[in-house]
Amino acid sequence: MLSSRIRHASLLEKIVTKETAASWIKDGMTIGFSGFTSSGDAKEIPVAIAERARAAGKPFKINVYTGASVAPTIDSVLADYMNIRLPFQSDKDLRKSINKGNVNYIDQHLSETGDALLTGAIPSVDIAVVEALAITEDGSIIPTTSGGNTHNYIKNAKEVIVELNLAQPLSLEGVHDIYEIGAFGERKPIPLQAVDDRVGRTSIPTGLDKIKGIVITEQLDDPKTLVEPDEETNTIARHLLNFLRDEIKAGRLSEKLPPLQSGVGSVANAVFHGFLHSEFHDLELYSEVLQDSVFDLIDAGKIRFASGGALTLSKEKMDVVLNHFENYRDKMMLRPQDMSNNPEIIRRLGLITINTAIEVDIYGNVNSTHIMGNKMMNGIGGSGDFTRNARLSIFVTKSIAKNGDISSIVPFISHVDHTEHDVMVVVTEQGVADLRGLTPRQRAIKLIENCAHPSYREQLYAYFNEASQRGGQTPHILEKAFAWHVRFNQTGSMREGSTPPLVEKEKVNVN
Amino acid sequence: MLSSRIRHASLLEKIVTKETAASWIKDGMTIGFSGFTSSGDAKEIPVAIAERARAAGKPFKINVYTGASVAPTIDSVLADYMNIRLPFQSDKDLRKSINKGNVNYIDQHLSETGDALLTGAIPSVDIAVVEALAITEDGSIIPTTSGGNTHNYIKNAKEVIVELNLAQPLSLEGVHDIYEIGAFGERKPIPLQAVDDRVGRTSIPTGLDKIKGIVITEQLDDPKTLVEPDEETNTIARHLLNFLRDEIKAGRLSEKLPPLQSGVGSVANAVFHGFLHSEFHDLELYSEVLQDSVFDLIDAGKIRFASGGALTLSKEKMDVVLNHFENYRDKMMLRPQDMSNNPEIIRRLGLITINTAIEVDIYGNVNSTHIMGNKMMNGIGGSGDFTRNARLSIFVTKSIAKNGDISSIVPFISHVDHTEHDVMVVVTEQGVADLRGLTPRQRAIKLIENCAHPSYREQLYAYFNEASQRGGQTPHILEKAFAWHVRFNQTGSMREGSTPPLVEKEKVNVN
Repeated sequence: MLSSRIRHASLLEKIVTKETAASWIKDGMTIGFSGFTSSGDAKEIPVAIAERARAAGKPFKINVYTGASVAPTIDSVLADYMNIRLPFQSDKDLRKSINKGNVNYIDQHLSETGDALLTGAIPSVDIAVVEALAITEDGSIIPTTSGGNTHNYIKNAKEVIVELNLAQPLSLEGVHDIYEIGAFGERKPIPLQAVDDRVGRTSIPTGLDKIKGIVITEQLDDPKTLVEPDEETNTIARHLLNFLRDEIKAGRLSEKLPPLQSGVGSVANAVFHGFLHSEFHDLELYSEVLQDSVFDLIDAGKIRFASGGALTLSKEKMDVVLNHFENYRDKMMLRPQDMSNNPEIIRRLGLITINTAIEVDIYGNVNSTHIMGNKMMNGIGGSGDFTRNARLSIFVTKSIAKNGDISSIVPFISHVDHTEHDVMVVVTEQGVADLRGLTPRQRAIKLIENCAHPSYREQLYAYFNEASQRGGQTPHILEKAFAWHVRFNQTGSMREGSTPPLVEKEKVNVN
Repeated sequence: MLSSRIRHASLLEKIVTKETAASWIKDGMTIGFSGFTSSGDAKEIPVAIAERARAAGKPFKINVYTGASVAPTIDSVLADYMNIRLPFQSDKDLRKSINKGNVNYIDQHLSETGDALLTGAIPSVDIAVVEALAITEDGSIIPTTSGGNTHNYIKNAKEVIVELNLAQPLSLEGVHDIYEIGAFGERKPIPLQAVDDRVGRTSIPTGLDKIKGIVITEQLDDPKTLVEPDEETNTIARHLLNFLRDEIKAGRLSEKLPPLQSGVGSVANAVFHGFLHSEFHDLELYSEVLQDSVFDLIDAGKIRFASGGALTLSKEKMDVVLNHFENYRDKMMLRPQDMSNNPEIIRRLGLITINTAIEVDIYGNVNSTHIMGNKMMNGIGGSGDFTRNARLSIFVTKSIAKNGDISSIVPFISHVDHTEHDVMVVVTEQGVADLRGLTPRQRAIKLIENCAHPSYREQLYAYFNEASQRGGQTPHILEKAFAWHVRFNQTGSMREGSTPPLVEKEKVNVN
């Protein structure tokens, strides 16, 4: 049986325990892990590394590079042992360490980690630790459920440790399309012209010699817990689909939509479920993460082809998809993130991109990463790669958070990830603001009128009107620009007239 | 003589006066003008349009699209008659109108105007008004000293009015490389792989029928007044060249540098003059504007090839270059801005990009457009196209402005055009901050230590240290984030302890 997974006999001798593999990881090393949104990441070795470090009781820090977010078996378990962490994460333990300044988190555009390695902008990889479906006769690694940065880490590393996952079905073989972008100065045009164009290989050339050891595992990916759509996310999805219908009526889109990209999460899921019961058909995806809803759409015959970077599924969907992958393999391809998120391709294909905002300011700048200016949430991920190069860039968010104590539309956002030059359309459960071709002042009115929660509109107009008195292309009152965030920090609410909660006042009295 | 410029006899009958041409421009129309950084723009017709509008004394507003900034004969003269203006300007009269809210200025990435037209995101062009060197036998237009958006406007317009410029020498013919990117969904990989690859035509297909009229002019481009390098800009240039030398020593760059891009202005000029007396050779440019210094470098045998979007020259240099263009034509090519600024190409070639910041915050975000948050200066131009896709993105600025009353390094910039994810290196006359691979906290120390003016370092550290107490990936004190700008607005200085100038106080007493 193992011969179907390890296709060159000499490799059998390289099978080691996870403890042995972990012993090769030394303090100060840079490790390039496979994995993208908890898919296709190594499961056993990272845990063994942490256990070994804990047992040794000596200072131990490594740099941890991945594709994007990875399972707690890396990001939670290793949080105390990380020096540099890049390019994306979404783990609550790791987030705490990052915000305390204990982990040096470098928040990168997901298309750019390979280039950063190539140009020496970040430390090079000592050892790549990658999950594999199989290793071919010539020592090429067949990845499992994600593309990620795996091929870049393998190329850049001195040695490769493979976690061979017997639980991932061999039917996944062939789903990958691994193309080498090449070095600056030697790059050729990427030949991809349609979402289903195959331009690369199905495995990553590695070489028998470079493989230092193989650890066998049978653990499946950490399943994604889906946040069920609620009334607001369903309304956002409805607005978004109606906006697309209006664009078709206006002749700005054809009935066959351009390829879609969508970020992870409940709104994206709600939008895709909206497509399920719609007139749209022959949908194409050129996206990062293929979630449950993509497979529902394939089952319903709605998707012509889905190109993604990872299969990120719930427990139930994983059972179905992995056991019947023959039903899906002609409809999809998985690519490394320097291809799934590639600006050249995104702008060539002319994507409709749908990403989630934490907050939006009245002029259309978007914060995707920070809470109240300071605290890192997850990271920018692919939102910058997609938004900047989209044919039609859309951001979605609920108009309020924390029971209305936070307005997602604010005078000035506390961190800027996407500038006014890039954000075309904003959708909340209140409606759609199409900002294309508008000046900042015109955008403000659209955003307040169409997207802000009614309970914050008056406050927003008050700011905008007072700012407008001062003139300028982008009117602001800098002394009040962050007053809403400051008020939230002090009183627990962005609402004007809010006072600190009683318990806080009492605390003050006690002191 | 005219037959060398108007190569189909039927077109001779289309020669009209500028007044007649102006009479075709109606209230409410959208006009697509040729021109990029005051090069290759129509000179006579815009003035005639303004004169006609003034004489008529009736409400008259048109939308004015260009390549980038254009001469006062468009932007100053027509400022009162503009509704929408895009995608870039640098005219002081127009700037005033924009900041009063009288002109609807849409500040776009220069690579994106063509796409905005193509997708219907902005009103389509009624009439294109374009300067030509000649019109070919099949009605193709040969542009003069800039690529700009001319080909997109001609394609999108119903009619084209040509300003045939007899003062531009016919030796310019052949310098253009006009490639059609194509519509979304039909785009092919752009075949360009080196700065000197010719991939397009030397003229813009227009058609004899589409040409409504021809106005003859003999006015040369408005010459560029160069700001002479001063001690600070020379020091910035020296730091920058030394940084490149260090990168070569570290093996991150080869001795033959990747192609360079540089924004307009005195620092860029100083940097290029620095190359003149350096060991660097075989330089390649893939840039927007080719200024005087580029020709000095060609004369010195330092430049292998320069691809640009426009020839933007001083009076003296214009005389030399235009009268002896045969010395330069093998060394350069002019491209439309959707090619000169194309993300696909920029990322493929791996450019070193050098652009100017208005202000930089301690975490490496850059403001390129706004003064004190409100007032538009010029626009983002190509800085976003280049920075986002660069191999090595560099921003330059003097560490202080207004005799030290403004620090260019601030706690929080008042407008964000380039985010921390994109800005790799900052250079001031104080030194170089290499931000690659650093966390925001690490970047802050680098920027304060290496780039901030000594007289502001203590103030910057005070902010950073207090903010750091609050924790977070990107420590901020939002209630104080804009205190420096507010102080400048109130007292005329960002320095702590500054008080309003006496005359202001007296004014207050009078009231």
